[in-house]
Amino acid sequence: MDSTFVQACRRGSTSYTPVWYMRQAGRYLPEYRALRESHGILDICRTPELASWVTMLPVRRLGVDAAILFSDIMIPVAAMGVDLCIDPGKGPVIAEPIRSRVEVERLRPIEASRDLPFIAEVVEMLAADLEVPLIGFCGAPFTLASYLIEGGASRRFDHTKALMRDDPETWHELMRRLADAGIASLRAQVGAGASAAQVFDSWVGTLSPAEYEEHALPHSRRIFEALVGLGVPLIHFGTQTGELLELMRDAGADVVGVASGTPMDEARRRLGSGVALQGNLDPAVLLAGWDEVERAARDVIERAGAVPGFIFNLGHGVRPETDPDVLRRLTDFVHEETAK
Amino acid sequence: MDSTFVQACRRGSTSYTPVWYMRQAGRYLPEYRALRESHGILDICRTPELASWVTMLPVRRLGVDAAILFSDIMIPVAAMGVDLCIDPGKGPVIAEPIRSRVEVERLRPIEASRDLPFIAEVVEMLAADLEVPLIGFCGAPFTLASYLIEGGASRRFDHTKALMRDDPETWHELMRRLADAGIASLRAQVGAGASAAQVFDSWVGTLSPAEYEEHALPHSRRIFEALVGLGVPLIHFGTQTGELLELMRDAGADVVGVASGTPMDEARRRLGSGVALQGNLDPAVLLAGWDEVERAARDVIERAGAVPGFIFNLGHGVRPETDPDVLRRLTDFVHEETAK
Repeated sequence: MDSTFVQACRRGSTSYTPVWYMRQAGRYLPEYRALRESHGILDICRTPELASWVTMLPVRRLGVDAAILFSDIMIPVAAMGVDLCIDPGKGPVIAEPIRSRVEVERLRPIEASRDLPFIAEVVEMLAADLEVPLIGFCGAPFTLASYLIEGGASRRFDHTKALMRDDPETWHELMRRLADAGIASLRAQVGAGASAAQVFDSWVGTLSPAEYEEHALPHSRRIFEALVGLGVPLIHFGTQTGELLELMRDAGADVVGVASGTPMDEARRRLGSGVALQGNLDPAVLLAGWDEVERAARDVIERAGAVPGFIFNLGHGVRPETDPDVLRRLTDFVHEETAK
Repeated sequence: MDSTFVQACRRGSTSYTPVWYMRQAGRYLPEYRALRESHGILDICRTPELASWVTMLPVRRLGVDAAILFSDIMIPVAAMGVDLCIDPGKGPVIAEPIRSRVEVERLRPIEASRDLPFIAEVVEMLAADLEVPLIGFCGAPFTLASYLIEGGASRRFDHTKALMRDDPETWHELMRRLADAGIASLRAQVGAGASAAQVFDSWVGTLSPAEYEEHALPHSRRIFEALVGLGVPLIHFGTQTGELLELMRDAGADVVGVASGTPMDEARRRLGSGVALQGNLDPAVLLAGWDEVERAARDVIERAGAVPGFIFNLGHGVRPETDPDVLRRLTDFVHEETAK
């Protein structure tokens, strides 16, 4: 029988609302911080024993209904031949930003068994050990492209938008290659035992709906179309996406992840009942006192309503300053509050 | 007779759509950059001759229908006794962040004639010299509070949200004092001859509608209520505000500024015809070729539609890399395209 998490993704009725947290395997955990003193993020991702250990770390402790593979959206991009590192404070840093056709054509297509062998290894280990489903993931082409073009994290995305507008052929070629990499990586993850797959388009909220539809949606849609035959639920997430939710749904995922800015009832109104929703407690709330956490979590649950197909999550990743005990208490609260 | 700009703010019919640009007096202008080599931003704001010169700089060159006072939203905050500077790259930097009741109570109420004498001086000079209306402005309490609490610019606003939630009395006291400062500053600007006033709530998009309604809206509303009797149009602007537009309208401004993420037709649909709209060309478009600029500007104009009450602007400030000649061409394009 499917797990509660997978049932909820498929809009089946469940005996309680399943819970997991974006970045649940991350810096807020002291054991993770200790490991990071001696190992870089990309090292951990590429060492199956370590990635497996980190992935498992929060599962029992927080009582969550799903694990998410410890990895980084830039892992497939590095395998394409891009020289990059992950700065713990700033995120991905690209040695030489990619802004021309020649640079795009230098990106190598990846073959997962050759270029990402550690992914199947860690997923197989986890699928054997975990008592809950494992979520695989990849970065959406737009978000990956923005890192490559800007050279790292950006507030403004000026270079990205300039390439998109001034050289659409190069843009679409870059997006195609990044979508291919995402497909290869997700196929490997699902092939090795992942029970669901999430596509992270974290920064896509910088686009207007018209820009999204023309420059990003076709490539994200291609990822979902390529994966739909694998038989696992597909989740589509971004931040600042209030104006884009309908288009993101139309890309073809089973579940739309809603960021904190859009109230869950409003998301449901816009998206209808034909898709499951995931979200969307503001991770900043977890730094307030428990009364506020409970009040805000209850608000999310109430706004999500009684429509089948809801997965409780945060609206973005867990903050490093979060107390793990608060997350544990939150999981229990959501389970009790929604128990039938 | 009222200027085209003021008529449009009042939803009167105009013979063309008026245009101005947020940060039209800024770093994209070589003359401004040259002045900045010898003068700090706050120095310029506090020296009427310089602030006047900078305010005038783009008006004829760009052919815009309104000037906006060269100043900084932190000027009244500094006058309240806060030790701060403006880092050209990072924005305001607060020497000692404000997070407790005691620190809030140390903020001095301001009296414009005593604490901001240069504001009336520069506005009087400009009102005498300008051929177009002058827009005064202040920062909205939420955005000012976020700088004070975080110590500077933020992506996450965790400290701000923690104070808001864990100590609402201190939060509201801080917001009241910042609203009072905004009111004092805008009264001085309008009293000295400003023809309109814009309240910048640049970072308010980090709040959900429920949070905005409880923690920010009452204080912004108080500013508009205090100013409505002055007889000049009031404009209310923020970014990432798609989910907040209706509430921002309800704060009482005559004009709602729409950021780039929300298409203008969608903003009109949400806000109805009882308010004027301002916006919202993505400033990143100005870094693309002219064909793209024209296409995007036409799209904004078409989406704004034929409802009276539209002011063409950008969705956020002009980027420093922008070519002034492109802005000039854009002004002319909008004027010609909308001429009746």
